[in-house]
Amino acid sequence: MAKIQARILRGFRDYLPADMIPRRAMFSKVEDVFRIHGFAPLLTPALEYSECLLGKYGDEGDKLLYRFEDNGGRDIALRYDLTVPLARMVAMNGGLTLPFKRYQIAPVWRAEKPGRGRFREFFQCDADIIGAAGPDAEVEILSVGVGILKALHVGGFTISMNHRGVFDGLLAGIGVEDPEKKAEVIRTLDKLDKIGQERVMEILASEVGLPASSLERIAEFLSLEDGDLDAAKTFFDGDEVAIAALDSMASTLSLAQEMGIGDHLEVRLSIARGLDYYTGLIYETTLTALPDIGSVMSGGRYDGLMSMFGAPAHAAVGISLGVDRLYAALLELEEIERKESPTEVLVTVFDEESRTAAFQFTHALRAAGVAAEVHLGNTKKFGKQFRYADKKQIPYVAILGPDERAEGKVRIRTLADGSEQLLSNAEAIQTLASTSS
Amino acid sequence: MAKIQARILRGFRDYLPADMIPRRAMFSKVEDVFRIHGFAPLLTPALEYSECLLGKYGDEGDKLLYRFEDNGGRDIALRYDLTVPLARMVAMNGGLTLPFKRYQIAPVWRAEKPGRGRFREFFQCDADIIGAAGPDAEVEILSVGVGILKALHVGGFTISMNHRGVFDGLLAGIGVEDPEKKAEVIRTLDKLDKIGQERVMEILASEVGLPASSLERIAEFLSLEDGDLDAAKTFFDGDEVAIAALDSMASTLSLAQEMGIGDHLEVRLSIARGLDYYTGLIYETTLTALPDIGSVMSGGRYDGLMSMFGAPAHAAVGISLGVDRLYAALLELEEIERKESPTEVLVTVFDEESRTAAFQFTHALRAAGVAAEVHLGNTKKFGKQFRYADKKQIPYVAILGPDERAEGKVRIRTLADGSEQLLSNAEAIQTLASTSS
Repeated sequence: MAKIQARILRGFRDYLPADMIPRRAMFSKVEDVFRIHGFAPLLTPALEYSECLLGKYGDEGDKLLYRFEDNGGRDIALRYDLTVPLARMVAMNGGLTLPFKRYQIAPVWRAEKPGRGRFREFFQCDADIIGAAGPDAEVEILSVGVGILKALHVGGFTISMNHRGVFDGLLAGIGVEDPEKKAEVIRTLDKLDKIGQERVMEILASEVGLPASSLERIAEFLSLEDGDLDAAKTFFDGDEVAIAALDSMASTLSLAQEMGIGDHLEVRLSIARGLDYYTGLIYETTLTALPDIGSVMSGGRYDGLMSMFGAPAHAAVGISLGVDRLYAALLELEEIERKESPTEVLVTVFDEESRTAAFQFTHALRAAGVAAEVHLGNTKKFGKQFRYADKKQIPYVAILGPDERAEGKVRIRTLADGSEQLLSNAEAIQTLASTSS
Repeated sequence: MAKIQARILRGFRDYLPADMIPRRAMFSKVEDVFRIHGFAPLLTPALEYSECLLGKYGDEGDKLLYRFEDNGGRDIALRYDLTVPLARMVAMNGGLTLPFKRYQIAPVWRAEKPGRGRFREFFQCDADIIGAAGPDAEVEILSVGVGILKALHVGGFTISMNHRGVFDGLLAGIGVEDPEKKAEVIRTLDKLDKIGQERVMEILASEVGLPASSLERIAEFLSLEDGDLDAAKTFFDGDEVAIAALDSMASTLSLAQEMGIGDHLEVRLSIARGLDYYTGLIYETTLTALPDIGSVMSGGRYDGLMSMFGAPAHAAVGISLGVDRLYAALLELEEIERKESPTEVLVTVFDEESRTAAFQFTHALRAAGVAAEVHLGNTKKFGKQFRYADKKQIPYVAILGPDERAEGKVRIRTLADGSEQLLSNAEAIQTLASTSS
């Protein structure tokens, strides 16, 4: 077999154990919150017919598809997100009982220019409710979000909500009705936090071409105090679309408060979210301790999207976690730790005569639920076994040499401080089972 | 947006909740066994450079790759298995502490002709120990296998072991030294269970072209009693390679017996395993209750493979679960159940005035760890809420109508038998928390 150079594609990465162990711990907590909220897991294929994906993400998105012809001449592509495959699945399964609450944690692929924190293969983690239109479904989605961030111990956080109807009203009021132009204004407003209000107004004037009177109205809108729904209603007086949007948000907020998750929510009229497909509630989330990493969790209502494959236009509301950002935040907050191995105890093999006892003790530890591994290989250099435990961040080492065995005991060393305990096997197993996670 | 027909590629499937919930339960038990054995999770990319995958699976395998050119003109392909990407990763990470014990549960892609139980996207579940050469590492791998099948409650099972050295000796003894011819003989012997000894001998005579004396020797070999290592040693008297192989198996078996997992192991000299890359121990696994579904777990030692990318030829031994077969077996054995939803309790909303109380009770159930969902949508047809619970296989329904609320109570109905209990909220939560999994 010819020797081929081992290399990995740019924009792709191996998740080695040190990151996989804490990532899985994170996902496990997230999935538990999905579960207690009644969201069921779903898995769709990595590959789809290209025509099922094309045109859904705009021209830019289409260019980023990993698209090719398979051996049978089919035009296929790797999924770009988890939402369009969900809509495809819903359209193909007309008998689904609604509301349908599903989550999916899975990689997606985009042929983007790789950069700092930007990968061509990355995980999305979405939960959606299909077929429920009211504020109650929105409160359920927000409850999932609050539950996740509490379960992950991120400390303080704020979910900032807005409603696309607010923009619809604002833009209709200044005569911007063309969908493309509307999208352009919204995308520009979405950059408010990044580039500041002055630059946003400049772009709206020079690139979008809004007249001074429109800019004035937008500036007045942006000066509304966050959370002051009454002031907003006065501003939008007579604008039915905007008033309905504000009332809808008020209902959502009120039910959320009654449910006990209101403390984490605020209305922030300036947030826009770039995506064109939202039709109602939109929201994003900032961590109090790490505001600069940007939104770690966002989503909203997108009632039209499910009909893209000819299925009924089911109402839909969803949440999406910024997996990589959340992982980075949890590391920085020291809520999770990189870890080379799941092993809690390395059972050393003192000499060849000790091997059987070591294997038996390892087996007994595992039966008690303790993550244990036994030294594999020759026993010539005993010290090497300790160095292995050290490198793998294994906290305890068990020694069953001739002396220990003669006494019917096992020696347990705690590597952090070098302390040792000589215990009966049963005592040792009990001690280790009670300290292991 | 134009309406596109929703369709899925042949050979691909959506895993809907009813299958995902029990599949995840199965994987969760499997992963726990990996963890207590000290195996760490690893994740490699779906896409690799084609040259890293080509030539590793034989000509047939190369044809089955999903291979294409990306936007940057790179020749890339979807992974065909998890072993070659592991070897690629090991070669790229020279500083890994050995032995390196990893598992990976992930989809692989093969452009095979789809058929009953044969998919183009399917999951593999592998665990491997890299960098440990002795019988001790083999016992560790077998311990993982025994642990998994016990954790899954499959009932009785037998892991049948053999050693490639036995075939090396046998074939050298009849003058078959050419690697391709050896592989052909081994592949033919691998079909013994499927097509019977008579047909195997026919193929060895007519297609492989073995002379009568060789066929006689093979027939004599096949007549050796399974598990009788002494008889085998007599048969191979003077054949150092075969004797060493038999001794190695005896050591593995003996340590496994001392460790307490020997009851599930047997030596079976006729099993061959098709794959060319095994160099020592090989094994496969039969379920006592369902022998016809074939091997549910197999693997062996493959000491050369890690050097395919120029890395040192680390010793390696692995285990691979037949995920789809195991899942089918667990369903048939009724050890897992298809289930539409994780929800344990549906909290109904009797009328609009009851909504707040319903959301608050749902929130309290979740805080107690009970998977709960609240009815979403209007409250006009109360009976519809029960039908929803029924369709979603939700076992309990909570009713907080005006009468219940006036008493400060909640009514819990068990859907299976229609029985009801009127309890205080706290009692209800306690009861439901103790019955929920």
